[in-house]
Amino acid sequence: MRRPDHQTTTLTAEAVLAPYLREQAACFLRGLRLHREHSAPADAGTQSADEAARALRHAARRISGTLHTFRGALEPAWSDQLRAELAWLSGTLAREHAYATRLGRLLEALHQLSGASLPAARTPSGDGPDGSDKERAALGVGTARAGALLERRLTLARTRAHSAALQALGSSRFHAVADAVALLASEVPLSAAAAEPAASVLHAPAELAEQRMLDAVAALPPDEAVEPYNEAQDALWHQARLLLRLHRYAHEMLRGAPDPALAGPGHALDLHRDASEAAAAASAAARTPRIAPTTAYALGVLHADQRHEVEAARAVFRETWPYAAAVTAP
Amino acid sequence: MRRPDHQTTTLTAEAVLAPYLREQAACFLRGLRLHREHSAPADAGTQSADEAARALRHAARRISGTLHTFRGALEPAWSDQLRAELAWLSGTLAREHAYATRLGRLLEALHQLSGASLPAARTPSGDGPDGSDKERAALGVGTARAGALLERRLTLARTRAHSAALQALGSSRFHAVADAVALLASEVPLSAAAAEPAASVLHAPAELAEQRMLDAVAALPPDEAVEPYNEAQDALWHQARLLLRLHRYAHEMLRGAPDPALAGPGHALDLHRDASEAAAAASAAARTPRIAPTTAYALGVLHADQRHEVEAARAVFRETWPYAAAVTAP
Repeated sequence: MRRPDHQTTTLTAEAVLAPYLREQAACFLRGLRLHREHSAPADAGTQSADEAARALRHAARRISGTLHTFRGALEPAWSDQLRAELAWLSGTLAREHAYATRLGRLLEALHQLSGASLPAARTPSGDGPDGSDKERAALGVGTARAGALLERRLTLARTRAHSAALQALGSSRFHAVADAVALLASEVPLSAAAAEPAASVLHAPAELAEQRMLDAVAALPPDEAVEPYNEAQDALWHQARLLLRLHRYAHEMLRGAPDPALAGPGHALDLHRDASEAAAAASAAARTPRIAPTTAYALGVLHADQRHEVEAARAVFRETWPYAAAVTAP
Repeated sequence: MRRPDHQTTTLTAEAVLAPYLREQAACFLRGLRLHREHSAPADAGTQSADEAARALRHAARRISGTLHTFRGALEPAWSDQLRAELAWLSGTLAREHAYATRLGRLLEALHQLSGASLPAARTPSGDGPDGSDKERAALGVGTARAGALLERRLTLARTRAHSAALQALGSSRFHAVADAVALLASEVPLSAAAAEPAASVLHAPAELAEQRMLDAVAALPPDEAVEPYNEAQDALWHQARLLLRLHRYAHEMLRGAPDPALAGPGHALDLHRDASEAAAAASAAARTPRIAPTTAYALGVLHADQRHEVEAARAVFRETWPYAAAVTAP
């Protein structure tokens, strides 16, 4: 936090922290109620069920992030415990969504591959290389098969994740989490420090969250020596994404809204994560035993396309990153 | 040609055209002599043999382009005949070079694919997706096999093209071309119009060559609706490349040097052609019967990479193109 906030300089930490946590807890409980209403098998994957799950994940991430960043103002054992349980829950709920997103992304990319036929734009002279029709045909056969293979694999994974999420939501472990969040909605377990002014209790942890984000971004590999298929570097970018998110929640709590300058970079890191995981899914599908070479070929094209999207997302991140010199410019 | 050239306003067409053609004819004959000296089987593919072939192609293209653009100032039947024969010769000589370039380009791309391992940059936390090592391994197996397959196919094609070039250079058809070029080196067969001022005879055809280039560039598909794998559009770009080259030779003849503003766009169109043909070669190799899925997968990655290079070359062309509004900007 660069500028002290007027509101937080005069209020206690409790007066800033507790309403935010209560609001997020209320969102969590509302999402849970909606999710129960729409969790009949017939509703699986409907918009209402998806929205309920999204609201649950959204609130769980914010509660968890706040417990992490402002641990000093909260009852420590209680918040560590809840944070671990929320991480388990968010992870379980996020998986189903992630498989659905990944499948949609890959099928869309395959569709672009096979649908891009432009016979009207054929050569006006005879000077072009021959074989472009054959290329297209080879891709066409493979994309259909690759699409079917990915759909089979990711739908299966999604169905399993859906069952796991339903099972988790019916478990006694989950009921304990829901009880803890219900407590949070009425009475936030604070430490003694929460009675002190917000400026002295909350600003230092928020600045630390910001600094950790800046450090993670500074540690990203420079753009000069970009090599293709640098999957080993993805983890550093995923790490930067998580730290940007923690900073965003801290900012949101202290200022009432996320930092607009970080919307672009944050979105780029989300796309980066999606493309990186889609590339890995294409690559994993290509390791299916006994697939046809045309299928493998299309999956190779898909893998390369998604890796190019990874690079594109990194470029957008660099272009939109608002802090000078934190990332080496291209 | 936008500005009239001082020299060509006072000289006859012959005084501008004949020295240029004589010089190119001398280059052709020198290249031919060098090629004969280095065409022993032991020299095949050596730097000297390559340089001799390059000099031959270089001169043949310029003579052919000049005969085409300034046909009105030359004896028409003679120049049409020589132009057709030079096209045959350049085509035959270019094939060997093209296969060698394509193989080099594809092996280099495969090398980047398999060599990009960065274990030192591994994740500092456990947050990254697993599977990146498996992805790399799957690519590794396939890239080695794909490299071997491409090397086999393109070396075979190159060897055949080399034999065909040697056979062409020993043919009576070639001796007739060499005789015609030898004539050109001493006495250029001109039409009556060549006695008139250069400005009235040469400027209009040069402007036409420029206009045809501008029209071809204006006819390129706009950048807004870029679809991946638009192989059907490549021919329009190849056509623009040929017309840019004809304009360049006309400029070179009239002004003594090529237009420096077109060096960037011309280079981009060369790269475009190379990447387009390399992508087609990867795709053609993937149609080899009974290849392993890992090989097909690597060829798919390679195909996609080369198509991305096609797009990148188009972007560079658009950025470096010196005429406003001729190509829709991105």
